[in-house]
Amino acid sequence: MKRPDYMALAFAEAEAAAARGEVPIGAVIVNAGEVVARAGNRTRELNDATAHAEVLAIREASEKFGSERLTGHDLYVTLEPCTMCAAAISFSRLRRLYFGAVDDKGGAVVSGVRFFAAPTCHHAPDVYPGIGETRSAEILKGFFKDRRDL
Amino acid sequence: MKRPDYMALAFAEAEAAAARGEVPIGAVIVNAGEVVARAGNRTRELNDATAHAEVLAIREASEKFGSERLTGHDLYVTLEPCTMCAAAISFSRLRRLYFGAVDDKGGAVVSGVRFFAAPTCHHAPDVYPGIGETRSAEILKGFFKDRRDL
Repeated sequence: MKRPDYMALAFAEAEAAAARGEVPIGAVIVNAGEVVARAGNRTRELNDATAHAEVLAIREASEKFGSERLTGHDLYVTLEPCTMCAAAISFSRLRRLYFGAVDDKGGAVVSGVRFFAAPTCHHAPDVYPGIGETRSAEILKGFFKDRRDL
Repeated sequence: MKRPDYMALAFAEAEAAAARGEVPIGAVIVNAGEVVARAGNRTRELNDATAHAEVLAIREASEKFGSERLTGHDLYVTLEPCTMCAAAISFSRLRRLYFGAVDDKGGAVVSGVRFFAAPTCHHAPDVYPGIGETRSAEILKGFFKDRRDL
């Protein structure tokens, strides 16, 4: 699969999250051309503020890989990761980060604390922003509009 | 129990983590005078870079409380929380944060990105630093010295 296809899987996870009433964000982790983890946001279902798509995908990939360090693994996520997830991406040593829309209210890669550029960040992935950003923004806008219209 | 006693439980969790070969950090969550969660760092055991003491305690307390928002809950942790944990503390709406030693290499409360003061932080707990900081620093120093001596 090519990059856009991995991001398409992440969008499918975001849409599945929306259908569950969760904020629609999806993430996929790829190692050596294989999808090893895919997850959508489940904070409400799990009653767990840490259950963001990226954290769930990192935990699944780490369990499969048998290491807390996901050397050579790449993460695709539909929205710019937040501060918690940016640090989790750093700690798990992900190689590359592809993300969709920028999140200037809660993001921490090109927005907010820009964690990967901070002196307390000891591993930064290669970052590829704006992959499918229009679709990413549309899914989120549609979700919040639908909720306001309820 | 009084504050120092809750921190003593956090130290016990840190020492149990050291005995398991983990970086010795412990955390306790208290609600209405009762300890509702306690955890030590388990990143190696679980092969999970997100399995910091604070995250494990937040997940346990949230499951018990039946909500991703830990309104009225207080967290005691033996070291200044990192960037990931500071954001998790914010997202889970913890009321107060008591911590031991400052961590200028990886902390994110009074060090590093100082997340609670960032514009992308939408809830900040009341922060009480330096609770048992000497013991906190000694446990960490002892652990890393022992590992160097192996």
